[in-house]
Amino acid sequence: MGAERLTNRDDAVLAILKTSEEVNQLKDVDSILDKILFESRQFSGADAGSIFLVEDDRLIFSYVQNDTLFKKETANAALYQNFGIPISEQSIVGYVAKTRQSLAIDDAYELDATLPFSFNKSFDEKSGFRTTSMLTIPLIAQESRLVGVMQLINAKNDMGKVVPFSHEARTYIPLFCNNASVAIERGIMNRELILRMMQMAELRDPSETGAHVQRVGAYCAEIYGTWAARRKHSAKEIKRVRDNLRLAAMLHDVGKVGISDNILKKPAKLTDEEYDTMKWHTIYGARLFKNQTSELDHMAMEIALCHHEKWEGRGYPSISKKDVWAGDDIHLGGMPRNGADIPLAARICAVADVYDALASPRSYKDPFPDEKCLGILESDAGTHFDPEVVEIFLEIFDVIKAIRDKWTEGAK
Amino acid sequence: MGAERLTNRDDAVLAILKTSEEVNQLKDVDSILDKILFESRQFSGADAGSIFLVEDDRLIFSYVQNDTLFKKETANAALYQNFGIPISEQSIVGYVAKTRQSLAIDDAYELDATLPFSFNKSFDEKSGFRTTSMLTIPLIAQESRLVGVMQLINAKNDMGKVVPFSHEARTYIPLFCNNASVAIERGIMNRELILRMMQMAELRDPSETGAHVQRVGAYCAEIYGTWAARRKHSAKEIKRVRDNLRLAAMLHDVGKVGISDNILKKPAKLTDEEYDTMKWHTIYGARLFKNQTSELDHMAMEIALCHHEKWEGRGYPSISKKDVWAGDDIHLGGMPRNGADIPLAARICAVADVYDALASPRSYKDPFPDEKCLGILESDAGTHFDPEVVEIFLEIFDVIKAIRDKWTEGAK
Repeated sequence: MGAERLTNRDDAVLAILKTSEEVNQLKDVDSILDKILFESRQFSGADAGSIFLVEDDRLIFSYVQNDTLFKKETANAALYQNFGIPISEQSIVGYVAKTRQSLAIDDAYELDATLPFSFNKSFDEKSGFRTTSMLTIPLIAQESRLVGVMQLINAKNDMGKVVPFSHEARTYIPLFCNNASVAIERGIMNRELILRMMQMAELRDPSETGAHVQRVGAYCAEIYGTWAARRKHSAKEIKRVRDNLRLAAMLHDVGKVGISDNILKKPAKLTDEEYDTMKWHTIYGARLFKNQTSELDHMAMEIALCHHEKWEGRGYPSISKKDVWAGDDIHLGGMPRNGADIPLAARICAVADVYDALASPRSYKDPFPDEKCLGILESDAGTHFDPEVVEIFLEIFDVIKAIRDKWTEGAK
Repeated sequence: MGAERLTNRDDAVLAILKTSEEVNQLKDVDSILDKILFESRQFSGADAGSIFLVEDDRLIFSYVQNDTLFKKETANAALYQNFGIPISEQSIVGYVAKTRQSLAIDDAYELDATLPFSFNKSFDEKSGFRTTSMLTIPLIAQESRLVGVMQLINAKNDMGKVVPFSHEARTYIPLFCNNASVAIERGIMNRELILRMMQMAELRDPSETGAHVQRVGAYCAEIYGTWAARRKHSAKEIKRVRDNLRLAAMLHDVGKVGISDNILKKPAKLTDEEYDTMKWHTIYGARLFKNQTSELDHMAMEIALCHHEKWEGRGYPSISKKDVWAGDDIHLGGMPRNGADIPLAARICAVADVYDALASPRSYKDPFPDEKCLGILESDAGTHFDPEVVEIFLEIFDVIKAIRDKWTEGAK
């Protein structure tokens, strides 16, 4: 809603309209939460905020921003915390979810003892943060569906002093949240649709689980974020590419659906000929994105096609994009690819996918310990993998671990 | 944007915000076009309007409403016309697409001869309609992407007299169209995503083409529309269900992905045992929608599971919904289903799917002629099919044919 604080109702509503338009551009639910929280904080001058989404009658922690505690534009493990709060009057977010009314609090440490809820000081105690003013807003989509709760913390005035949330913030942010809630529902649906495509692949290859693709998508988004921040790409560009990359990376192995059962489900080692057939999953996957109507399609195509290419060459399928659309009479390896010829998204996905296989249990092995996984990635940097991507992976390994813990096998 | 004409800027912008929120609820591109055109016509008092979408550098006719020519809430073959207009200065919509500026014309028959475009009278001559005032607006999404053009025709005043478009209409409808364009792009993406799921199935069973599922989706939407209008369901309810049904019906055979190649691709007749295995595609399909986050999921589950049930019973799989989620040790036919026990969406899809197979070429047969197709449906009404669904199918057969002609095999 713009950096300037708008006080005129008319301008505020126009700004909401414009921001809603921008939110509706985004496809992935995490990108949508990031944008909604960022814009609401800009509008109100809030130092921090978080969003909880409703899942099975609980409020699940889903997004956080905090200018005091976290550096902007760097990978942040706090995003992947896994906890939920019951929808009950005991907590502030639970109370707001239950009453479906916005609630402004001027000082969280000075709550009237007659109120049903109390402020949970544990986060402040752990982090050294001092929560003062709060504005907590229910996220309600049409037909009164409760999608979640947004909590904004510590409004600051122009001097950087923490103050109560303004009348304008209390009036206009809930208005924006109506549109935002619809966008969140849509973002959840988009991710579900992509998970379903992967479930179709899972019907055929049980190692392609929903948890695996959620992890690979999140690893890729975080690696890319750091890669682009190093190059000082604009925040807007980074957010747009991350949004697409996360969903596109989830689809890296979708072409396995085209591989016949006797190869895909063979309990023994594949023969050379069978392995060559297996390599076609890259081409089948790329072909699913032939009608490239968006940047997401384009990126999904690049990742599906090139995630088994190697930095020094000798990966597969090493064919030209033109040949992807040709018939099945193509010579794999006809156009060798290496280095930066391999699209960045595919170089990132290669590291994320291999790491996830190493760190996950398989029928024939236990998960490898961290040192072993990282050792393999490091020793293959520059041969199999883009060395800078491996370097970034090691740099943000705390975030990688937080992601790994968020989506464990068996979870949704 | 409400029935009352809003003149206050502030109220107009609030109304746009509310309507944008409603548009963003919708998932299928046709539902989105319907809503955008309807709301723009309400706001401006326009008697008619149409939307063209950009495809391969042409403006493809994509939606139409006309209160004078078409009855509301009845199936309308005009929606499925198939024609395009070049983006060039010769036509009014082409000129607006090219210049990306809205254009208001007070009388289409009194255009200044110095203008580069001329009014194409052929539609008026064929239909007896008299086009007078026009408001033509480019649909532009973010990053200046041209999505299409909306044309509103014959603004009417409170007395029903055709007048020029008001200043308010010229000001606010283009503002609304910015948000609308984003929604249209999203609707196109949703349909592409679902077509991709079907392409995955097509990798395995080449008779499951994109054109087939587009036709089945549209047949179902039109049959349902007439079924619900007979029962005087509210326009809002009809639109919401149609929106979901159209996409859900496209996914009816998605579970075929789970059937092994030696059965799915067997060139000869299946043995009884193989046919029993084939029946599991209904259960595999239903399982893909286990995480039911929306009405769309719920409907896709019902259709996938029940589109081979029969009105008099003895269809398949005839298992309880609870058993769908159980393991693979289920007895098909354990819970026989018939009549109105079969969800409406599945009863409708059964007729649409069988008709499409009859009317399409197969390796072993030519398309059956209309009389033969309709004869089969009629003779199976009350045994295989819900008799009222067949009756409606015959009643709207002109619309069915228009749909069949719009998506012919080989087209996208």
